[in-house]
Amino acid sequence: MGTLYIVGMGPGNEANMTGAARAAMEEAEILCGYTRYVELLKPLFPGKTFHATGMTGELDRCRYCLARAAEGLCVALVCSGDAGVYGMAGPTLELSEEYPSVEIVVIPGVTAAVSGAALLGAPLGHDFCVISLSDRLTDWSVIEARLRCAAEGDFSICLYNPASLHRQDTLQRACDVLLERKAPETVCGIARNIARDGEQVRILPLKELRNAEADMFSTVFIGSSSTRRIGGRMVTPRGYRK
Amino acid sequence: MGTLYIVGMGPGNEANMTGAARAAMEEAEILCGYTRYVELLKPLFPGKTFHATGMTGELDRCRYCLARAAEGLCVALVCSGDAGVYGMAGPTLELSEEYPSVEIVVIPGVTAAVSGAALLGAPLGHDFCVISLSDRLTDWSVIEARLRCAAEGDFSICLYNPASLHRQDTLQRACDVLLERKAPETVCGIARNIARDGEQVRILPLKELRNAEADMFSTVFIGSSSTRRIGGRMVTPRGYRK
Repeated sequence: MGTLYIVGMGPGNEANMTGAARAAMEEAEILCGYTRYVELLKPLFPGKTFHATGMTGELDRCRYCLARAAEGLCVALVCSGDAGVYGMAGPTLELSEEYPSVEIVVIPGVTAAVSGAALLGAPLGHDFCVISLSDRLTDWSVIEARLRCAAEGDFSICLYNPASLHRQDTLQRACDVLLERKAPETVCGIARNIARDGEQVRILPLKELRNAEADMFSTVFIGSSSTRRIGGRMVTPRGYRK
Repeated sequence: MGTLYIVGMGPGNEANMTGAARAAMEEAEILCGYTRYVELLKPLFPGKTFHATGMTGELDRCRYCLARAAEGLCVALVCSGDAGVYGMAGPTLELSEEYPSVEIVVIPGVTAAVSGAALLGAPLGHDFCVISLSDRLTDWSVIEARLRCAAEGDFSICLYNPASLHRQDTLQRACDVLLERKAPETVCGIARNIARDGEQVRILPLKELRNAEADMFSTVFIGSSSTRRIGGRMVTPRGYRK
């Protein structure tokens, strides 16, 4: 019986990796992941066998790992951030019924909502929603309905995938939906290249976020009505000072 | 000028701590936190000075750390899970304007939504909301409105603080609100004592969650309409297999 670790490696640098994630990758005989992340891992785990697949090769990647583990190998399927938040844990577990001999262990990591929030201050200090703007696997009507509900509930909102190579106006469309219910001055933030070269943050009102640049390496934060700008940071109070 | 690290230590054991969290605590001259977590840290950082405060001493804890850092010391204010998600980053940044000489660095950690999800499978594999059921700092009417919006948007939902010493029926009340819009068979999960002694998970339908036991060391997950039980795990598909 082989073991498949589905590992969240955190936002990109070694410092944000957990000890459990590192130990799983040390133990594994094969490290598998999206090409870009495999390149980040190679210098950290010299001598390992790596298997990289491209951006839309998710199911192939899961099947490859399950098949190798079914052969008795120890395999680590590595995801950026956390393995469960828009990561490979879901599709791998869906496919796992075809590979009953494989033991699967999901190892959590620091997802971009959490690492981006830390860079900006504490935008997720109270209740929040996480929504992906990618319409590759989800109808835009579903995304739009969720944005409306998140705004209606006055949640802080963290947006994954605010842009892609072929979609330029996604964030603009999302902001227009949010502006139906959220004030134009709502405090927002963008965290880009978190814990990697070119790391940067920006804090701006929702009405400006609409026209801001946010690429596929950006995570976007939209405040609740109580989110404030404090000393250059974005903070959503929980209410201790009431 | 002193430095104040606000550190997320992860769900409790050393394995889920990031390298950056560990490095900050090594560098700090004083480690400060809630009594229960300080006890977990003492064996890991022998020889350090510890400062522990009780459950409702949050603002005192923030002020103590800011004051020590303003004296020029390096201080780590340690939170369980992540420092920003219902953690001390928010209140500390709110108070920080009174201590302009202190450099504040927020170090993210693995929050219970993510670590609990990994234990259960992948319940947060698509869009999700995080809501605290604690009405100590938030009116119940706000919590109830957010539960309704989260159900209306068909999000997966992660509930923090599903119970406390003085509130026994919180989870039941929350489930009743959710049952207005979510099916009684909706797949739910409870993760208890994550990464600590007595760790356990349970998967059950929403109609049973209503009467289940969930204490203050539990994190609760409520699925979306597409969440399924697969091989003993709770999985919210993102749609790769469509």
